[in-house]
Amino acid sequence: MRAEIIAIGSELVSGQGLDTNSPWLSQQLGALGIPVAFHTTLGDDLEDHRSAFRAAIDRADLVIMTGGLGPTQDDLTREALAEVAGVPLVEDLASLEAIAAMFARRHRVMTERNRVQALFPRGAEPLPNPIGTAPGIWMRLGRATIACLPGVPSEMKRMFQEQVLPRLRELGAAGRVIVHRKINLFGKGESEIEAQAMDLTVRGRVPEVGITAHDATISFRITAEAATADEARRLIEPTAELIYERFGSLVVGEDSDDVAEALVAQLTRTGSTLATAESCTGGLIAQLITAIAGVSSAYLGGAVTYSNASKTALLGVPAELIAACGAVSPEVAAAMAEGARTRLGASLGISTTGVAGPTGGTPEKPVGLVYLGLSTADGTQTRRLDMGPERPRDFIQLLASKAALNWARLALLGER
Amino acid sequence: MRAEIIAIGSELVSGQGLDTNSPWLSQQLGALGIPVAFHTTLGDDLEDHRSAFRAAIDRADLVIMTGGLGPTQDDLTREALAEVAGVPLVEDLASLEAIAAMFARRHRVMTERNRVQALFPRGAEPLPNPIGTAPGIWMRLGRATIACLPGVPSEMKRMFQEQVLPRLRELGAAGRVIVHRKINLFGKGESEIEAQAMDLTVRGRVPEVGITAHDATISFRITAEAATADEARRLIEPTAELIYERFGSLVVGEDSDDVAEALVAQLTRTGSTLATAESCTGGLIAQLITAIAGVSSAYLGGAVTYSNASKTALLGVPAELIAACGAVSPEVAAAMAEGARTRLGASLGISTTGVAGPTGGTPEKPVGLVYLGLSTADGTQTRRLDMGPERPRDFIQLLASKAALNWARLALLGER
Repeated sequence: MRAEIIAIGSELVSGQGLDTNSPWLSQQLGALGIPVAFHTTLGDDLEDHRSAFRAAIDRADLVIMTGGLGPTQDDLTREALAEVAGVPLVEDLASLEAIAAMFARRHRVMTERNRVQALFPRGAEPLPNPIGTAPGIWMRLGRATIACLPGVPSEMKRMFQEQVLPRLRELGAAGRVIVHRKINLFGKGESEIEAQAMDLTVRGRVPEVGITAHDATISFRITAEAATADEARRLIEPTAELIYERFGSLVVGEDSDDVAEALVAQLTRTGSTLATAESCTGGLIAQLITAIAGVSSAYLGGAVTYSNASKTALLGVPAELIAACGAVSPEVAAAMAEGARTRLGASLGISTTGVAGPTGGTPEKPVGLVYLGLSTADGTQTRRLDMGPERPRDFIQLLASKAALNWARLALLGER
Repeated sequence: MRAEIIAIGSELVSGQGLDTNSPWLSQQLGALGIPVAFHTTLGDDLEDHRSAFRAAIDRADLVIMTGGLGPTQDDLTREALAEVAGVPLVEDLASLEAIAAMFARRHRVMTERNRVQALFPRGAEPLPNPIGTAPGIWMRLGRATIACLPGVPSEMKRMFQEQVLPRLRELGAAGRVIVHRKINLFGKGESEIEAQAMDLTVRGRVPEVGITAHDATISFRITAEAATADEARRLIEPTAELIYERFGSLVVGEDSDDVAEALVAQLTRTGSTLATAESCTGGLIAQLITAIAGVSSAYLGGAVTYSNASKTALLGVPAELIAACGAVSPEVAAAMAEGARTRLGASLGISTTGVAGPTGGTPEKPVGLVYLGLSTADGTQTRRLDMGPERPRDFIQLLASKAALNWARLALLGER
């Protein structure tokens, strides 16, 4: 069995609203072992409804729709379903009474127009809506099973859980379970990592492995289907172990955990403390760390030294050094990292100084050039990053921040 | 002419990722007067690609696709397009050279696999990608025009604007024009602002006015349709003026401009400089400012003082004051703001100290309590914010950061 999800609403297809119902439904169906093959979004045109419904029942066994069940003339789901099914719309008395009772409870006047919400394609089953006026619809259409739910997320979610889920279980549709596991890597590019994982990402492999890139972090996504969640997790385990073995210290975490979380875990494990000194990243390193709750024992603080004078005032970088080498130099990166570490009494100091762009680059020091510094009691080192001048400012700041965090993480792992 | 937008990615159709590309593209096309009738999302199944592409060219004149252009085996857009078009894939030498040059500039090894990104259905036109390795595709398919763009939003947006937009204009596709104007307010809640704007947001008004809230900033969105962009802008102007008059200093900017941009503009206008001292906001204030390019004459730098000792070491806050009043206190907020201002020689110093949660709250100093400090040559003041313990950590950090930035902005406006 595979599914299609249809979201109906002019505000969605025009880009004025974001459809969060379809991703939520995909997750719910995925957890039940029902893969979702398509999402379709459409506006309030009747012919578009008909064509989308026909396409869906042709390529999916289960179609879940949200929206288009309201009382206004824009709400065409009922009408289009009846047309595609070739049956008339008939009034359901129980639904009509439930709608009238909902209006009475809210001390509101029920308009004549609201009666249309009690109309259903003949043969369809009404799905009661406990918290709104629009009942849902459950029916067969061609070889597919159809569930229509209101577009309001709170109503949709509750009706999915109370009305649709039990019916899917009855159908025996919710047999097998799909489990995902996401392993995040940092430090190499997507194609380089994939070149070392062609045997894993090959199509048809069990469990399935995909690669995605997000904010310079590369993720392996392992997916397995089984009768139970435990069994699916057992299927995933050997592949996850293989990824950990093969990519070693590139692995920074799982699920939403990224480089900052991995560094905080290393700091906590080793009882170390961190101080930061940021120029071109402008506070982003500090912000990535302090976005994590409970880091105050591991992160002492840092300086954002955007001007040359602030590098001297807050971190003790000699003004003569800046004058001699320039603010964007390995010497200044080293002095910043060391200044942060010693002034705050931390085990590690990390620093960034570079050209985030889009202006301010020179042939010698182009946009995308960043020096990182790492200072420990054993000494201070620097590194040069060249990200290329065509990268946007926010990407340069993010990649430099993650590279600095990751260097500190590897230092604590005993690997530089 | 009407359009369909296709988003390709297993993570999207499985609900693990949110598709923000399609709404953005819908807005862009809407502004050109090209209505979008459908969004379709699909995973990495070749047959699903074929069926979705066939359906799209049957019901739309323009099809814009995002994703599936990467170098991995999951990336099937090129292959499926060639199959539906009934033509072979051929290598484009210029694209291959551009990809190789991109790898060289980034000092990365180009793998054999990346060559597939230079393959195009015969007869298609490559769309150069200035900031990534995946070129886009422009071609005719049946009676429809097709544009394929990478899924990475920054690459997609830039290529839409530089490559697709001029081609659509050439096609004469852009008819009546829809213009939006967004005016951003900070400092009051959405319902309070809406209560003062009921006459503007009434349905059917021309131009139409909507209200949205995002990250504690409230936005009015004015929309008008006309034969030309100039005419639509003229329709919008009186309503925009009304909003400026009625909401005065709550207005922080237009489009993407928020409180940080407004403060930087005030700093520049008045020739003032800013220093920051952050505890609970952990670098977020600095990051919001330095995300803006070219701020180095207005923003000198600051300290992220997460530990008590760092408040003393970097900002000169007396240790006895922290011991007597606690780190979360108006006294320490004042000393932090003053320390940042005087140590960095800035015109203004702003500070935050509070409890961002979710843990660390006490009955006296609950989660959501933040003290702000503002120091100028005229003296130092503090303010107390109570955001409530049920707010998530990231919201507390963001609202406190924006409130501090906005306080500095109003101080420069001559309004406290």
